[in-house]
Parts: sequence; C-alpha cells; structure tokens
Amino acid sequence: MTEKPLILVTNDDGIGAPGIKALIAAVQHLGEVVIVAPDSPQSAMGHAVTISKPLRLEKSNLYEPLTAYQCSGTPADCVKIAVDKVLHRKPDLLVSGINHGSNSSINILYSGTMSAAVEGGIEGIPSVGFSLCDFSIDADFSLAAKIASNVAENILTNGLPQGVLLNVNIPKLEATEFKGVKICRQAWAKWEEDFDERKDPNGKSYYWLTGKFVNFDKGEDTDEWALTNGYASVVPVHFDLTAHSALSYLHQWTINP
Amino acid sequence: MTEKPLILVTNDDGIGAPGIKALIAAVQHLGEVVIVAPDSPQSAMGHAVTISKPLRLEKSNLYEPLTAYQCSGTPADCVKIAVDKVLHRKPDLLVSGINHGSNSSINILYSGTMSAAVEGGIEGIPSVGFSLCDFSIDADFSLAAKIASNVAENILTNGLPQGVLLNVNIPKLEATEFKGVKICRQAWAKWEEDFDERKDPNGKSYYWLTGKFVNFDKGEDTDEWALTNGYASVVPVHFDLTAHSALSYLHQWTINP
Repeated sequence: MTEKPLILVTNDDGIGAPGIKALIAAVQHLGEVVIVAPDSPQSAMGHAVTISKPLRLEKSNLYEPLTAYQCSGTPADCVKIAVDKVLHRKPDLLVSGINHGSNSSINILYSGTMSAAVEGGIEGIPSVGFSLCDFSIDADFSLAAKIASNVAENILTNGLPQGVLLNVNIPKLEATEFKGVKICRQAWAKWEEDFDERKDPNGKSYYWLTGKFVNFDKGEDTDEWALTNGYASVVPVHFDLTAHSALSYLHQWTINP
Repeated sequence: MTEKPLILVTNDDGIGAPGIKALIAAVQHLGEVVIVAPDSPQSAMGHAVTISKPLRLEKSNLYEPLTAYQCSGTPADCVKIAVDKVLHRKPDLLVSGINHGSNSSINILYSGTMSAAVEGGIEGIPSVGFSLCDFSIDADFSLAAKIASNVAENILTNGLPQGVLLNVNIPKLEATEFKGVKICRQAWAKWEEDFDERKDPNGKSYYWLTGKFVNFDKGEDTDEWALTNGYASVVPVHFDLTAHSALSYLHQWTINP
C-alpha cells in the first residue's frame, strides 16, 4: 500500500468515552485516523438510523491533531455521514468501540457499537467492533487495546471476506489470567426481561427494563464459553439474515390467497 | 388446541396506524388478540431497546373490546413488556405490522417492524413481520391483509423451526396484477446514502439522511426479485449472525497479543 490506510473510528458510548480514547491510541500507528462518533451515549440503539429529524455534525478538538467530528445521530448514522460528508471515500478499516460492556452473543442485536461495525460491513468497509466486559468508567482497557491493535493489523494485512465483519469481546481479566484469543460462533443466549415497576410522584406507573442473561448454549466453540473461560472471542458476523436451512420447509406451505 | 391461540400484535408505525388496524382485522378470527404497540411512530429504530429512561405502558381503548396497550418504547421494548407485564405468558403467535413501506432485503436491519418480530423469535414466540411496499397513509391493505391471514394461519397450524421467524413483504399491486407468494432469500442490496445539507436560521448546517436503494443481487430467488416481478416475498430469518463460512479463514490468523 503506497498511501497510509484510512481508518474510521466510532463507538456508541460517545466521543468522549475512555473506550474510544483507548481505541484511537491502539490503532493510530496503523494509518490515518479519523473519528466520527456520537455526541452523546447511544448504547442499546441497535441498528437505528435517524430519519424523522435532521442530524448535526460538528468538528471536535478532543483528539487534536487528529480529525474528529461529533454527530447527533446513532452509531449507524455516524458511519453513514462519515463516509458521505467527512471522508468522501471509503475507509480501509472501520473500528468501533471499545465498548464499555459486553456485546457477545445476542447482545450484538441491541448493540450500538456493533451496529456501526455492521453498517461498515454493508458499506463494504472491512469493519470490527470491540467490547470490554467491564461497564466501569475506570475500566482497564490495556489488554483490550492490545487485542484491538492486533486484530486491526490483521484486517489491514489479510482483509476480510466480502460481507463479513468481526465482533470482538475481551474479558475483564488481568493480563496474567488471560489465556488468548479464540475464533468463535455466536452463542445461543437471551435476556429474560423483568421490568421493574415504580410509581412516579403522581402515582402513575413507569417501568425500567432489567433482566437476566441466560446462556442456553452448551457448546465450547461459542463466544460465551470463551469469555467465561479466560479467552477473548472473535466472531465473524454477516448481515444476510436468511435462515437458509428453513427455505425447503417453507416451500411445503400453501400460502397463496 | 383446546384453548384459543394467544396472538400478540405490534408494529412500529404506532398503535393508531392504518396498517396495524388492518393486521388486527386480518388475524382476529384466529385466536385471542392482544395489542401492545408504540404510542408514537418508531420507524427505522432497528433493534433499539430503552435502557437510559423508563417506559410508560397505558391501556388504550382504540380496539375495544380487544385488550390493547400503548407503550412509550421501541418495538422491541413493546414485545418485552408485553410478555412480562401484559400477557404473563408466551403468546402462540406474534404478528408485527402491517408496515407502511418495504422491509425487504437489508431494510430488515433498520426496521422497527422486523425488530419486533426478531425479538419475538428470540423469546421463542413464532413470529412474523408484514410490510406493504406503499408509504401512503391511504394505502390499500386488502391484499396484504389476506396474505397476513394466510401466513398467520400457516404458522399456527404448522409451526416454525426453532429460531426462525418470517419477513413478509407485499408489493403495491391490484389483486388482478398479483402473481402469488414466493419463499425467498434476502437480496444483497444496500442504501447509498446522500445527506441533504441545509442551513438553519442561524446559518449552521444540519443534515437529512436520504439515499438511493441499490440492488446488487442478480438472483431470481431473492425478495427484491419477487417484489419487482409481481410476487409477495416470504424470507425465513434467524438471529445467529455468525458468518460460519468465515470461521476457517480466521483460524489461520495470528492475533494473540
């Protein structure tokens, strides 16, 4: 490559979050870094895009001398507006995160961090999302940053198959307890929700979403297994949601009106 | 079945939208219908869930004598709160829609209608989302309603494979032009975004997300092909996003720090 690779950095915790700061530092030596990230936290935004109101996009001096913009939209909006209005060309790599909290298994669907990576994949950009299994604002990102740097370098050197992006989760462990990186499939797990009902000062009910994460998957090749056994997980992700195995079953149905 | 099947109806256009009214009428004869839908439009919300603020859930008399609730959250929130606080048991069927506008191909990722169906699938509820390729508030839902009724009946009678839900799209056609229902895979297509930059009264820029839908897929077994050739499309959908075909490629990488 004669030109330096162009690397787009985004996240869902907002442009000022410690996790994105750690990610910028981790990939800065690999190319020209441009940051376009939400101006406020956008966790659990899934793959939302903003169509009913306009977006703001403003320069940020947080990471000078690097070019950085904050956007009022969702993580997916950030990727779209970065490509169209900031970079004016497709970047060579998109890195999203480092998220404060796990995005393993079914959490990929709810995750703003991963929606940015998925949007990158749709755009044809080699993309990856990183998440550290630690919600604390004071989380130690050093192990996650090392893994992010290695994964980013691998993507730039080796490329990713067409239509494939990566979901990388890093356990909350000391470097001495860490066993290594595992290539995994998404575990079959879900949240069993339990809404917390409360009364407002006017006596009217309101509800907080809470829940318990339940892993139904006994496989030892899953991201959940890796994370609970001392490994970081790398799951290749695609956005063809077709359940190909169910096509022949449905062909037996009579559904014409 | 001795008891009447319990059918949860939801959508993303809001509880008062013509599309959900048509869907309720289409499935009412099949069981006990309960409606839990957003209190305001939630299009393009993807799989967002509400974690940073509490939710409201209020009874609605819109569809009396049927039980109906409106919720301040996203479509995925509606499904979660319906199961936990309204139904107190898993319904036998979840129908979402009928959406005002297509949710074929990549649109499934951005769609609130489909996120409700995906959430239903994660909950273990046989689930389906319906969308009519017509954004008009005066759209004719009669063909879509007939298809919705047939698909719902098929699901109740035959069941769906574990972890599979359906994405059903209906073309904007007169019944005489309609050629039938096709079982399809998700087309490889995307939006090429083109943000519309404008100036506010203070001279500051703001941006509207606009774009052009581009279908790269030449296959005649896709939802896009079906819809542009006079058919309704039924795509079986799953929520294991693992790109299984890429696992062996990644095993060749060296990524341990």
